[in-house]
Amino acid sequence: MKQLLIAAHGSRRESSNDEVRALVAQVADNLGVAFDGVEVAFLELATPSVESVLSELFKGQTKEVVLLPYFLSAGIHVVKDIPEEIDKALSLWPDKKITVLPHIGAFDVMASVIAKACQH
Amino acid sequence: MKQLLIAAHGSRRESSNDEVRALVAQVADNLGVAFDGVEVAFLELATPSVESVLSELFKGQTKEVVLLPYFLSAGIHVVKDIPEEIDKALSLWPDKKITVLPHIGAFDVMASVIAKACQH
Repeated sequence: MKQLLIAAHGSRRESSNDEVRALVAQVADNLGVAFDGVEVAFLELATPSVESVLSELFKGQTKEVVLLPYFLSAGIHVVKDIPEEIDKALSLWPDKKITVLPHIGAFDVMASVIAKACQH
Repeated sequence: MKQLLIAAHGSRRESSNDEVRALVAQVADNLGVAFDGVEVAFLELATPSVESVLSELFKGQTKEVVLLPYFLSAGIHVVKDIPEEIDKALSLWPDKKITVLPHIGAFDVMASVIAKACQH
């Protein structure tokens, strides 16, 4: 089984975390058969943590996780914290696979999405 | 004249700020005639500041600024810091106009953009 994991920063404002959770639910509705499910995790200030979600998934039927860093630029969380979480999980579950996507600010479509939205 | 201002968080990693600047340049390439130009500003840790960009624009020919909060969720920067910057600018330039767009995490297209990108 293959899961998508959207890893966000997390906020002290619970409404901000709920906004991310709601977006992840929408992504789930838009996702085709490539994934068996979508989970959300937070790097700090909110739960569940990346570590706990990876642990739950790998204790179950999940063989592969595709991790999307829900970040706009490659700051310290993207270049250091997420790779560290992945290394930690793979040391515990060496027979599992984690693939990391570009952070969403690096998506090719972002500039045209922004330009289009600003003109409405 | 009407300008788009993309307001980002700012990072200690200058490469991360450059990434935002590069995206803004791409947005400029994609933007139609609705705007006379696009600027970038940072809330903290990087320059130029929102205050200095608004000041430069309003000292010139700009009558209206459309501000896009380049944030994924409505945290404290979106709900408090950006409105405060706007109030400050409008108290100095009462004959100018600033319109705020939703932060990009609230764009309707975001869920489908993510779902599509994750399946590639």
